[in-house]
Amino acid sequence: MGALRLPSLSSFFTSSSISLRSSLLFRRQNRLGFPLRPLSTAFSSQNTAEKETEIEDRQASQKSRVQDRVITPRSQDFNAWYLDVIANAELADYGPVRGTMVIRPYGYAIWEAIQDYLNVIFKETGHSNMYFPQFIPYSFIEKEASHVEGFSPELALVTIGGGKELEEKLVVRPTSETIVNHMFTQWIHSYRDLPLMINQWANVTRWEMRTKPFVRTLEFLWQEGHTAHASPEEAEKEALQMIDVYTKFAYEQAAIPVIAGRKSKVETFAGACKTYTIEAMMGDRKALQAGTSHNLGQNFSRAFETQFTDENGQRHHVWQTSWAISTRFVGGIIMTHGDDAGLMLPPKLAPVQVVIVPIWKKTDEKTGVLNAALSVKQVFVAAGIRVKLDDSDQRTPGWKFNFWEMKGVPLRIEIGPRDVSSGSVVVSRRDVPGKQGKVFGISMEPSVLVAYIKEKLDEIQSSLLGRATSYRDSNIVDVSSYTELKEAISQGKWARGPWSASDEEELKVKEETGATIRCFPFEQPQGTKTCLMTGNPAEEVAIFAKSY
Amino acid sequence: MGALRLPSLSSFFTSSSISLRSSLLFRRQNRLGFPLRPLSTAFSSQNTAEKETEIEDRQASQKSRVQDRVITPRSQDFNAWYLDVIANAELADYGPVRGTMVIRPYGYAIWEAIQDYLNVIFKETGHSNMYFPQFIPYSFIEKEASHVEGFSPELALVTIGGGKELEEKLVVRPTSETIVNHMFTQWIHSYRDLPLMINQWANVTRWEMRTKPFVRTLEFLWQEGHTAHASPEEAEKEALQMIDVYTKFAYEQAAIPVIAGRKSKVETFAGACKTYTIEAMMGDRKALQAGTSHNLGQNFSRAFETQFTDENGQRHHVWQTSWAISTRFVGGIIMTHGDDAGLMLPPKLAPVQVVIVPIWKKTDEKTGVLNAALSVKQVFVAAGIRVKLDDSDQRTPGWKFNFWEMKGVPLRIEIGPRDVSSGSVVVSRRDVPGKQGKVFGISMEPSVLVAYIKEKLDEIQSSLLGRATSYRDSNIVDVSSYTELKEAISQGKWARGPWSASDEEELKVKEETGATIRCFPFEQPQGTKTCLMTGNPAEEVAIFAKSY
Repeated sequence: MGALRLPSLSSFFTSSSISLRSSLLFRRQNRLGFPLRPLSTAFSSQNTAEKETEIEDRQASQKSRVQDRVITPRSQDFNAWYLDVIANAELADYGPVRGTMVIRPYGYAIWEAIQDYLNVIFKETGHSNMYFPQFIPYSFIEKEASHVEGFSPELALVTIGGGKELEEKLVVRPTSETIVNHMFTQWIHSYRDLPLMINQWANVTRWEMRTKPFVRTLEFLWQEGHTAHASPEEAEKEALQMIDVYTKFAYEQAAIPVIAGRKSKVETFAGACKTYTIEAMMGDRKALQAGTSHNLGQNFSRAFETQFTDENGQRHHVWQTSWAISTRFVGGIIMTHGDDAGLMLPPKLAPVQVVIVPIWKKTDEKTGVLNAALSVKQVFVAAGIRVKLDDSDQRTPGWKFNFWEMKGVPLRIEIGPRDVSSGSVVVSRRDVPGKQGKVFGISMEPSVLVAYIKEKLDEIQSSLLGRATSYRDSNIVDVSSYTELKEAISQGKWARGPWSASDEEELKVKEETGATIRCFPFEQPQGTKTCLMTGNPAEEVAIFAKSY
Repeated sequence: MGALRLPSLSSFFTSSSISLRSSLLFRRQNRLGFPLRPLSTAFSSQNTAEKETEIEDRQASQKSRVQDRVITPRSQDFNAWYLDVIANAELADYGPVRGTMVIRPYGYAIWEAIQDYLNVIFKETGHSNMYFPQFIPYSFIEKEASHVEGFSPELALVTIGGGKELEEKLVVRPTSETIVNHMFTQWIHSYRDLPLMINQWANVTRWEMRTKPFVRTLEFLWQEGHTAHASPEEAEKEALQMIDVYTKFAYEQAAIPVIAGRKSKVETFAGACKTYTIEAMMGDRKALQAGTSHNLGQNFSRAFETQFTDENGQRHHVWQTSWAISTRFVGGIIMTHGDDAGLMLPPKLAPVQVVIVPIWKKTDEKTGVLNAALSVKQVFVAAGIRVKLDDSDQRTPGWKFNFWEMKGVPLRIEIGPRDVSSGSVVVSRRDVPGKQGKVFGISMEPSVLVAYIKEKLDEIQSSLLGRATSYRDSNIVDVSSYTELKEAISQGKWARGPWSASDEEELKVKEETGATIRCFPFEQPQGTKTCLMTGNPAEEVAIFAKSY
């Protein structure tokens, strides 16, 4: 996978002493009035391998860069832009241990919005939340052959507890299929106990070497659903139901036009029979696997002897599924919608949907403006609109405009003395820059204003989805030969073409182009198909892309 | 502490092979028609030190016990009762690793109700949720002297990651003060950054030797709040505010009449200046520390150099607090309100507030009864009452009555053919057994029924609190001498008396009686006080008790 990924990001993690030096520097710059720290460069300088003098050099050069711009333009350096946005919008910070991430309140609030939505759907579809221990006996991991092969290189192991060497090493869960099955075996006796459908919200640990905030961290947060069924048909139906839940969530809440489909055998989850996936195209046109749902068949139930007695007294191994979405999805939102100015959040998941910026020059204007702003805020709160009133004295309105644009807030309301007199406000859209996105004279009358704002939020939600869909569609190329595939991939695009070749040929594509099969999409073109690689008949098209 | 605690419960945890044997046995018994597995005895038999023949013997004797009763009576063996309730009500199960616990859906739903309430209050009081990594460099733990002393015997350490021995061992968080301060140091620059008030919902690990489900487990779930302030007064105010939040929660939501107060120096959190606590009296009259709030002073800010610049350009270390409530609280609810019949849940936290049991004998009655039951259910759902309709064919109404009583559901509604004809239902209270708690002829008319049920739920909530308060008060003895204290403790009661003696004398009390100072309660009696131990003047009374 090495060739497919960005240059090692693990080197961005640092000892605290060096990061302290950097942050002291930026603190000084802050006092010069620059609103934001250029943290992508700060993190770039956090290379423990660098000599201190190099860091000093960089810091000097950063000083001048800061004066030019706050966030590296997306078009100039997508990765630096991504790290800048995360740092400046205060979504996350680096933890002290290599590859770990602190999720800051603004980033965590996006995750909470994801949780709030999915949690309701999971319950509506019959799943109960519960909690499994995170420590798994090492022997459990070894029970399912392909599972141990997939996960053993990534494990964090507890070997000492309470001051003593442990007899058996404990795995810090990378995923919970093994411990879930250990328990299911004790709970499932007869067909009456099925289906058993549970979910847990938890942290998981995978010892990744190349890390990137949200996208791939040593520890991350997720939900993992686990179900057991009396028939293979029910398990398949459940696995498909849950990838549909994720798809609907991606489209309707995150405004991300994912492509749902089935993974190739090579890319299937370690221990699954089939893996369904939603694949999202990021702003740099790399694919992000944003959620997966696995039909586990009887792989784990055989390994853990999870059996039930059917109506006729016969014993069978249960059929199972598991499915997950993680904090990686937050990275997907950033990389789908963000632009040069920073973050752009879909209204349905935005922690702040509307920011109110009061504007006054003379002291005698202040009270009237602030009172009007406060009453507009209260109207929004009552209407269930997530609103922030930025009434601080310490920043200019212009600074605030930039700041909240960078934070991706969908709508801004400006209220100045003239607006107060006319009983109206100015409304600006984050997704339409400049004058074009600005409308004057919207009445402050509560019912009018609330209706207007709700309509605009819906418009922005649709507009983000529409824009991302056009972008996606203009960057997927239909290919009918390996030459065309290579051409598309080398242009940074996704290639879609008929595929019935071998695993070896799939790996060859990966080696030669850096692209993998992201999925065989559920939506397939009509007509006969010929494998782009072998010229043999093919039943399906596959999508190839470079990915995170 | 050994003498204070129950006989070692760690021995109840077992290898999977033995627990599988036990559960197979109970499965067989289940088919004989016994509704519930006597899991306290099952867990008792899970002693890895025992020979298999002993286990077989026990299993044989359990068979006869099962026929007598389902749950060990509380009065007979409080601990066995507690474990039986947890197993039979399906609140939790044992994980495969010694001392770990699987929180099952019904138990987790209680925790979710706790989360839902506290999460709102935390936000209302100005705190933001976020997430810190769970792996902490070992060196961090060593930075605060008393913190390392308190926690180092309980640590789980990750020493291997990605197949390699790590250069520095990683601590799996036992609490997060150290990593929080590491990050606060990077985020806090000036007084404008203060107060910084955050919270996280997370799992924590403490390598406890004597474990007990919910009360003390190797891994548990909690929330931990962390705040930084510009003055010691603000930190003190915050620490007190949060213990007040916990107190109000305990009284109003959990119906647990906790006693709030200050810990003695001996019992103060490792790293805190002051620890405030809420202490609850369990049904066996042992105390349970149910929540704590710490004024950390500058202990961690000095260790981690967390400083801010004040209005005059002076640098200061911040003043801090931390505060937590954990899944232990679920154990407190079980042990406060439960009775011989099982769990008894306070309506505000009950996952199911009302269970509807339809009753029919003839097939032609069934449809009418089920339709009525379903429409009553829908009325409750619309009214925001958490309701379960138990319409299964496989159990008798009598079995269902017992089952849902054991599960602690506050109200039961019975609907039979005659009720359908008369348009009324029968309502039974969980907290008032038998005929006394049963009211016939409550109208099915939605507004009447909903109003009646809401009133009854409120009544039960108050009644549980009233009963627990009487029980508590009748088991606290005012003492004025060490002899009286010893007498009270030996009777299993709490002793309250003036105290100004030394730490050594406090430890002597612990050694000789098994009781510790639970707190110096905020509510103090008037008048001059004389230390019960030394005869010197005392400013406060302390409460002594044996505890979990």
